[in-house]
Amino acid sequence: MKPADFGINIGGLPRGPRNSISDVPGVSVGHATIDSPSIKSGVTAILPCPDSPFRRKLTAACQVFNGFGKSVGLTQIDELGTLETPIALTNTLAVGAVSDSVVKYMLATHPEIVSVNPVVLECNDAYLSDIRSMPVGGEHFLRALKDASPDFAEGAVGAGTGMSCHGLKGGIGTSSRIIDIAGRGYTLSALVMTNHGLLEDLTIAGRLIGPGIAREISAPAAPDKGSCIVVMATDLPVSSRQLRRIVRRASVGLSKSGAYISHGSGEIAVGFTTANRVPDTGDIHQFEIIAEPHLDDAFRAAAEVTEESVINAMLSAGDTTGVGGKVRFGLRRFLKYLNV
Amino acid sequence: MKPADFGINIGGLPRGPRNSISDVPGVSVGHATIDSPSIKSGVTAILPCPDSPFRRKLTAACQVFNGFGKSVGLTQIDELGTLETPIALTNTLAVGAVSDSVVKYMLATHPEIVSVNPVVLECNDAYLSDIRSMPVGGEHFLRALKDASPDFAEGAVGAGTGMSCHGLKGGIGTSSRIIDIAGRGYTLSALVMTNHGLLEDLTIAGRLIGPGIAREISAPAAPDKGSCIVVMATDLPVSSRQLRRIVRRASVGLSKSGAYISHGSGEIAVGFTTANRVPDTGDIHQFEIIAEPHLDDAFRAAAEVTEESVINAMLSAGDTTGVGGKVRFGLRRFLKYLNV
Amino acid sequence: MKPADFGINIGGLPRGPRNSISDVPGVSVGHATIDSPSIKSGVTAILPCPDSPFRRKLTAACQVFNGFGKSVGLTQIDELGTLETPIALTNTLAVGAVSDSVVKYMLATHPEIVSVNPVVLECNDAYLSDIRSMPVGGEHFLRALKDASPDFAEGAVGAGTGMSCHGLKGGIGTSSRIIDIAGRGYTLSALVMTNHGLLEDLTIAGRLIGPGIAREISAPAAPDKGSCIVVMATDLPVSSRQLRRIVRRASVGLSKSGAYISHGSGEIAVGFTTANRVPDTGDIHQFEIIAEPHLDDAFRAAAEVTEESVINAMLSAGDTTGVGGKVRFGLRRFLKYLNV
Amino acid sequence: MKPADFGINIGGLPRGPRNSISDVPGVSVGHATIDSPSIKSGVTAILPCPDSPFRRKLTAACQVFNGFGKSVGLTQIDELGTLETPIALTNTLAVGAVSDSVVKYMLATHPEIVSVNPVVLECNDAYLSDIRSMPVGGEHFLRALKDASPDFAEGAVGAGTGMSCHGLKGGIGTSSRIIDIAGRGYTLSALVMTNHGLLEDLTIAGRLIGPGIAREISAPAAPDKGSCIVVMATDLPVSSRQLRRIVRRASVGLSKSGAYISHGSGEIAVGFTTANRVPDTGDIHQFEIIAEPHLDDAFRAAAEVTEESVINAMLSAGDTTGVGGKVRFGLRRFLKYLNV
Repeated sequence: MKPADFGINIGGLPRGPRNSISDVPGVSVGHATIDSPSIKSGVTAILPCPDSPFRRKLTAACQVFNGFGKSVGLTQIDELGTLETPIALTNTLAVGAVSDSVVKYMLATHPEIVSVNPVVLECNDAYLSDIRSMPVGGEHFLRALKDASPDFAEGAVGAGTGMSCHGLKGGIGTSSRIIDIAGRGYTLSALVMTNHGLLEDLTIAGRLIGPGIAREISAPAAPDKGSCIVVMATDLPVSSRQLRRIVRRASVGLSKSGAYISHGSGEIAVGFTTANRVPDTGDIHQFEIIAEPHLDDAFRAAAEVTEESVINAMLSAGDTTGVGGKVRFGLRRFLKYLNV
Repeated sequence: MKPADFGINIGGLPRGPRNSISDVPGVSVGHATIDSPSIKSGVTAILPCPDSPFRRKLTAACQVFNGFGKSVGLTQIDELGTLETPIALTNTLAVGAVSDSVVKYMLATHPEIVSVNPVVLECNDAYLSDIRSMPVGGEHFLRALKDASPDFAEGAVGAGTGMSCHGLKGGIGTSSRIIDIAGRGYTLSALVMTNHGLLEDLTIAGRLIGPGIAREISAPAAPDKGSCIVVMATDLPVSSRQLRRIVRRASVGLSKSGAYISHGSGEIAVGFTTANRVPDTGDIHQFEIIAEPHLDDAFRAAAEVTEESVINAMLSAGDTTGVGGKVRFGLRRFLKYLNV
Repeated sequence: MKPADFGINIGGLPRGPRNSISDVPGVSVGHATIDSPSIKSGVTAILPCPDSPFRRKLTAACQVFNGFGKSVGLTQIDELGTLETPIALTNTLAVGAVSDSVVKYMLATHPEIVSVNPVVLECNDAYLSDIRSMPVGGEHFLRALKDASPDFAEGAVGAGTGMSCHGLKGGIGTSSRIIDIAGRGYTLSALVMTNHGLLEDLTIAGRLIGPGIAREISAPAAPDKGSCIVVMATDLPVSSRQLRRIVRRASVGLSKSGAYISHGSGEIAVGFTTANRVPDTGDIHQFEIIAEPHLDDAFRAAAEVTEESVINAMLSAGDTTGVGGKVRFGLRRFLKYLNV
Repeated sequence: MKPADFGINIGGLPRGPRNSISDVPGVSVGHATIDSPSIKSGVTAILPCPDSPFRRKLTAACQVFNGFGKSVGLTQIDELGTLETPIALTNTLAVGAVSDSVVKYMLATHPEIVSVNPVVLECNDAYLSDIRSMPVGGEHFLRALKDASPDFAEGAVGAGTGMSCHGLKGGIGTSSRIIDIAGRGYTLSALVMTNHGLLEDLTIAGRLIGPGIAREISAPAAPDKGSCIVVMATDLPVSSRQLRRIVRRASVGLSKSGAYISHGSGEIAVGFTTANRVPDTGDIHQFEIIAEPHLDDAFRAAAEVTEESVINAMLSAGDTTGVGGKVRFGLRRFLKYLNV
């Protein structure tokens, strides 16, 4: 079930066939979920390509909107403009263990590696999960990797299992858009891990429905201590500089769904393109680069897929009771507020 | 006439008495307007304090959301975290002349100056004004300065005379919010120069009214070639680093009113605080700095004043016919779409 | 007379035929010099190509090492990765007037322009020149432009007329290196405007000769209030991101000649490549991009041309007496300290 | 044995009593060393204060000179301007395991923590050590922590055990300077992990001695694949913005000792001050902030301690034979080239 299935439309650009990050050919996603009464956590792995991302690196970029976060791998993406591993999402305190696992996986599959840059992005699931017990280990990354497929679950699954969003249940969401440039179709898509925002600010497709829900569930006001991670994929022929401009528009989508990018919320976006792969060998590479004014369509698509992915993460997640009996309701319970 | 007068409410924080950037004590604004059939341009000057900003510099910060712009003075603000002159707004091609005028004014009033950092921010009014005739000169900055007052006009005035916003008439808008921190009230306010956005995306207080207006006036689709400048003022005791975090939330307000921060739109924010003035003399300065978690209220206020300032700029501007008979309608003509 | 003519060798890479920024084909430089007893100032213009830089933009990048400076045009270079005008160098307080002149020149030669990003870089010549009289006007940029040639003077000329460096006479210097990548030769060159550094730190080709000179001329210690501007040119096929990595190594060359990049010294580098011109039209551009590991030779060349350009600026400048009878000696007077 | 003991003087500022990062009161350093025929690796821990860095955070800043590196924790330092854990140094592939260990240590000692930002910095010791066997585990961080003392070894020890520098043996080095501001003495110190540079560029106190050594040992030319990590400590009352300006001058010291900050070398600096601790509680904090022009002495000290720390790391390390019988000679063997 996607927003469109509920009559919710975000923006005006056409969606890809799956409305998923995997509409970019070659991209697949897998989850490892840990779900017990006191533990709601896990790992989500995004494989950017079916072959080795190390031997033919992907042009990449990142943008930190609010750096109160512990994600790793951004420094090198910023400098070299490339991604050379799968991207792993997990909880804040598991970054080290998952990072270690990504490195070991890369070593095991690439005998030539003596240096590699794992990219691990995180949100804090402490509200629903006993994060201090550090339930996520390296094996969860391997399981997520093994689970990877173009078809994958959304909502309270993988790294999203214990996440909260706008006072309701958050998690993993995805969406895609098709843009036409010079007579050719390209895909731009996102996968988000949502763990941010206040209930009072929740806005779906322009409708501020948070206050109504807050009254219904008598939710007390609470500071935003979450985060939101946005991973974008595209097959547009862009440079790292252009891709950075694109991923920067994730903040537009977040803002439209009610985020204020609050102090405690580590908002970070990472993007990659499957065009312009960078080989390990050779002296001069030939790249196609889109003319700069055409980026406007990609900017709009970036905002739309981010906004829709956030909503989809929430629509896909059901009610969840976590550590200490704390509850996060799923958004589906409140569809009446959408009047759709 | 402010949004509130039309029954439009942006956010939930209380407004200051003037709902203006000048609600921060000591801040004043003046305009010099050039208005002829083919020329719609001018200068708007923001004085951050009644005394010398050079001798007691203001803690300041800036953020470039989209750097397709020609504003000057940002490099030094970024490095030193201070503002030492009034801020001038004008059209893109007048930045040099106005910058020169700011320098001459500072020399004339400060015999000790051999180096000074003018801050001049710009949008492009070429749609309504014959920008190539370069109508703005240094004298317009001096006139704007002389005109400065806590009470000042908004809309199609000063540097905003020829600006367009979301396919309608843009210009100068302002707004303020009062936030309470540890039992004491502080003001955070903005003044914007709006020249950005597509009509189809215009959103007022969460209502997407652009498409309806576009149908009514049969507006053709057009690329966004504008810009939006946001100047924030506050009396919060913050460091330059904290202030940068605050002004960064201007993008939330822009996004909520329908901006996609498009390729051609140079979106830039500059902020200053009247607390923590930095004297020219002394070895060690004593500063009060707000505890970081308290910034959340300032972030929310920053988003609200930006969003409301954009709307106010549009509500304050009437229909305008510019060079070549091109017309931009004022938003007031379309209030029915707000159903308020 | 170049360092090599004095037996001074900087680094090990071979120089280009002119040992000049103009060894990159198409690059030319011109000066307008203002030289009176109390005024030592002017403009230096760098033309990056013989044709229009606006219609076929040059891939460009910049790096601020110390942002206590008033240079303009950097924001857009950073965002779009292109240069679209000649680069002008001048004194700090003349940036507005010269910026205005660059804009007018671009309008006069390009009827299609309604927006253009002038790049004007500055140092402060207040020690030798009555900077408060604002002697430089727009006409000096036009004269410098008209004077442009691959063969141009160095030292106390153009914008360098009144500059000081390491307590001696500074000014304009240039240098180039040839690097071989995959069997093909490329040129990387720099032009610097030197106005930075303390005499006690002056280091030529590894020899700390400043203290000896200071004793000879009984120079009092003085704070560094200067700046250094580095403009790099190349014909390497690099992206804007790669070029930014290259120009960042200007700091290595500055450090080797004795700079501490002090508080008051606005150290800024801008670079462009004549490869990968970006046309105004078309949807997808084909670019050649050098493999990242090959950048090491370019990094070394960037450091070498910066270091040698600084020395050459000083070697080319003779003794200069400026406003108030203040004197800066030329480095040539102290060659004995080099023991070469 | 320190450079001064060999008659080598770097700069002119006075050293602290230990000529060590621990001259800043409260700072201590410990090592865990792994040393077998094929493994030369370990962890070095820097404790910024004797009490909890989490409950009274330290004002901090960082600067990436070349982002080809895998260090973690920088994003949050950049955003919040604070350090809240010890700093760990280790090898590139051990960052995940050590990061995990820092988190577990912080959880064990702080029952209130649900989110914490470990700072782990790295260089690649693959030349001398079988890095693919991933010999470093979390326990090594704990051992290094336990070993912490104001008096600690330098050279081939801890994280520096397997590092190379300028083709010779690198490792851990430290140095300090005393600066006088407004009649009061402050300390600025550094600890470096050196793994960068080419032999041909090695420069000690201005003397280019690398080529002579290269001839003596018939060293083949090799690309620079190392890195250099610089950690600075001070008791100066500075803001995070000012501290960032200070640590940025580490590049001056690196350049003076022969670094070109090459493509493969992840050059990163992190600094903290023990003044202006940021408590967990309270609404408004009182900070003392040094007047900006006084930073010049700190800039100079930052360059000097970086340069001297690099040399000291090399002087303290003896000949080392590592994996595959590969050898790195210690610098002490070549003191004759210094003619001191």
